[in-house]
Amino acid sequence: MKGIFYGIGVGPGDPDLLTLKAYKVLEKVDLVCIPKSRMEKESVALNIVEKALERKLDILELHFPMTKDQAELARNWDSNTEKIVEQLNQGKSVALITIGDPLLYSTYSYVMKRILKNHPEIKVETIPGISSAFACASELNVILTEEEESLGIVPANADKEYLLKAIQSFDNLFLMKVAKSYDLILEILEEVNFHGQAYLISRCGHPDQLITSNLQEMKGKEIHYLSSMLIKKGVK
Amino acid sequence: MKGIFYGIGVGPGDPDLLTLKAYKVLEKVDLVCIPKSRMEKESVALNIVEKALERKLDILELHFPMTKDQAELARNWDSNTEKIVEQLNQGKSVALITIGDPLLYSTYSYVMKRILKNHPEIKVETIPGISSAFACASELNVILTEEEESLGIVPANADKEYLLKAIQSFDNLFLMKVAKSYDLILEILEEVNFHGQAYLISRCGHPDQLITSNLQEMKGKEIHYLSSMLIKKGVK
Repeated sequence: MKGIFYGIGVGPGDPDLLTLKAYKVLEKVDLVCIPKSRMEKESVALNIVEKALERKLDILELHFPMTKDQAELARNWDSNTEKIVEQLNQGKSVALITIGDPLLYSTYSYVMKRILKNHPEIKVETIPGISSAFACASELNVILTEEEESLGIVPANADKEYLLKAIQSFDNLFLMKVAKSYDLILEILEEVNFHGQAYLISRCGHPDQLITSNLQEMKGKEIHYLSSMLIKKGVK
Repeated sequence: MKGIFYGIGVGPGDPDLLTLKAYKVLEKVDLVCIPKSRMEKESVALNIVEKALERKLDILELHFPMTKDQAELARNWDSNTEKIVEQLNQGKSVALITIGDPLLYSTYSYVMKRILKNHPEIKVETIPGISSAFACASELNVILTEEEESLGIVPANADKEYLLKAIQSFDNLFLMKVAKSYDLILEILEEVNFHGQAYLISRCGHPDQLITSNLQEMKGKEIHYLSSMLIKKGVK
């Protein structure tokens, strides 16, 4: 019998933000896959899970190098998917863990898509995780949305036009991975004469978490790659 | 000593989607507040929590009647907040539970805002919950966002112009509480010549959960008030 494939979101940092479901599956699953962009780097997702669990996990590290070459990306997703399928075919249950939620800008998505398409006989179960947007708002005690307001969740690794449009379109905006475009975002906020509330949050839920609403203070400084901004236009 | 005030999101339905943090706090908290729009109605949030916990809870039901009268709403938020503060002043720890996430369209927000403003001496701790947007995507095994796509989370209890703008602005859109505007949403999708993927999900994570991508089938039918739609424009 083939094993079940689980995609598990482990939240942004605090091990206690794992769901009961994630915890229960991770306590019994045969194999845990860790996607890594660089093999020598520590896995944030694994660190979170190891803090939450009692047991020792059986680990399979998978290399998903970052590249702009779409063909190479596809080849890596294909071959990593087949490595997972090999384990499932042996009857093992396999979980792939990711920080935040597994269906929001996550490597898991690409693997899931391939398994559903090429191996329809395999049972796939996705277990949602707390996305950093929600964890950050909770850390801040700041309302994400009320009444008829919208919330936009958008990656910040885009160009100025894209970011400007996002800032204009949403009542509340959560910008993910702002490290490289931080100064540009401040510039846009100035241009649109922004007068709402905005926060920078780095490493949400980790022991070295940083939160500030003094955005100017961080201008020009090195910002951790696990950083986001919550931008609230209308504050009641 | 004053007690801590907790705002706890319990997820949309599956008790296993409670976080470990929510579970741990609910296992020890002195009092659990249940916001109710009608006192005779069962509380969905309480049902979820009771399934997840071993212990019997000490409950305080709070009446938050729905009304368009802003002054009356404010009076109810004020008086319910003071009822909670009374308990906190007795040294009790108090949790207010809500389905989904406590900072996304939730009664908790209004209480939190008042406690932070009027009782700055009280410690407030918000515990995020799995929002239905994420639980639904997981149930569907459908990707919420990839690459540079945006995700919008928007309430569907608005007029046509608002909904049309939302559908036009986002790559992926999660419409909450679609029951009353379901036929209108289908009309708009037809008008904009929508050719992506769209799903209706009712009572996500509950035993009677309903999921369909055959939207026409539900036209004109009664739709449960805990219903949402996931609308994906570009499908790769």
